[in-house]
Amino acid sequence: MPDCKDIENVWIKEGERIDDLQRDGLFIIQHPGKFCFGIDAVLLSGFCRLHHSYRVVDLGTGTGILPILLSAKTNARHFVGIEIQADMADMASRSVSMNNLSERISIINGDLKEVSSLLGKNCYEAVVCNPPYFKIGGGRRNPSKELEIARHEVMCTIEDIVRESQALLKQNGHFFMIYTASRLSEAICLLSKSGLQPKRLRLVHPFDHRDANLFMIEVVKGGRDGMVVEPPLIVYKEPGVYTDEVQDLYRS
Amino acid sequence: MPDCKDIENVWIKEGERIDDLQRDGLFIIQHPGKFCFGIDAVLLSGFCRLHHSYRVVDLGTGTGILPILLSAKTNARHFVGIEIQADMADMASRSVSMNNLSERISIINGDLKEVSSLLGKNCYEAVVCNPPYFKIGGGRRNPSKELEIARHEVMCTIEDIVRESQALLKQNGHFFMIYTASRLSEAICLLSKSGLQPKRLRLVHPFDHRDANLFMIEVVKGGRDGMVVEPPLIVYKEPGVYTDEVQDLYRS
Repeated sequence: MPDCKDIENVWIKEGERIDDLQRDGLFIIQHPGKFCFGIDAVLLSGFCRLHHSYRVVDLGTGTGILPILLSAKTNARHFVGIEIQADMADMASRSVSMNNLSERISIINGDLKEVSSLLGKNCYEAVVCNPPYFKIGGGRRNPSKELEIARHEVMCTIEDIVRESQALLKQNGHFFMIYTASRLSEAICLLSKSGLQPKRLRLVHPFDHRDANLFMIEVVKGGRDGMVVEPPLIVYKEPGVYTDEVQDLYRS
Repeated sequence: MPDCKDIENVWIKEGERIDDLQRDGLFIIQHPGKFCFGIDAVLLSGFCRLHHSYRVVDLGTGTGILPILLSAKTNARHFVGIEIQADMADMASRSVSMNNLSERISIINGDLKEVSSLLGKNCYEAVVCNPPYFKIGGGRRNPSKELEIARHEVMCTIEDIVRESQALLKQNGHFFMIYTASRLSEAICLLSKSGLQPKRLRLVHPFDHRDANLFMIEVVKGGRDGMVVEPPLIVYKEPGVYTDEVQDLYRS
């Protein structure tokens, strides 16, 4: 019988590692020098409401973390993750296979700026996205090209994401995004102008008396006016200690 | 010497009463059957940041509560409150005189839809507003015409308020508003489209685990992209008991 090392060698390449997602026996392959998923993917996975009939596209899937988490947290029918970086898409595909999720999740190596031509227009019930937060030149500099692409608008802008989401979605389809709070008004205006009506908003604050650093939003294509602002999500109750709600998100 | 009743009779008309604002010896005349100020005016008065050089316009001043509170809470140079209902404007004027604030506050009986023609364009450093929250037909029905005008867009819409604020303000002037959370995205889009850039946002939640019912926003005419979302303001710590922050707002 092969030992653990042999099993790992089947799935991972040099510099990669396999991390336990600590739920439903799921694992994910990551490369610490490139990009490892952060708390934003976990928060967004808890915010998405996906019906069992939904086919869902994840724009810029990276390691595939969102479809993998959402496959466990929801009953959505099928996920497509699109990723522009070939090595990341390959790594995400291996994570999907390793978790025996190939029937529910497809990973495509492609450019999200053209995803609606690739996958079809007005076909999907939901789109999810954890986009790069910073304009080129904004935020911290990144040590690697992969991190740069994940965090800065090198390969796509928020305008691209809004345009393609609008094109992918059926009428009344749902778009879920986590994004930086400093760009809240910009994102809301772009979405509304594209006919993607904000319906549900939740601010994320690192501590309860600190400014929000992130927000999560659900918009509906062709939705009517009127929205709900949910209770704030507070991440830490003290430095290094998650609130009960965030601990639960990692567990359930 | 006249007794209290005589002093009251100098200032109030039938059905009106004088309420103690419990700060700086300020009082306000109100008519319980028409419109009495609510917590939103108090919250907004705590959110506004007004420099001592500012001349400020309050759109739809009602009882004059906002300029009267802001005259105590800030050092702003001068306030103009415009009110379309003649009897409300008259009552607000009497409150201003009664508080010896005639040099800092002017009340005008006029239509805010034309206020920038009346007061001049590009002249003011700040505009404040606690507008009607509901479209005609939305929200609860009101027992009186005065309440209807205060709560519903009978006499002015959010579009009128945004247009006139933009016109009144100097470049880099500030607009402060409290508004219903269900119309957050609509307000943000209208403001941004008019060149009034959202810079500071605060959500108001009745309890810490309840959806927001209000928001307060500061926008800057011609401001740059990028905004701050402040910690949530929670109104009650238990039913009927204000949080310390809200208690302080009523006191300070």
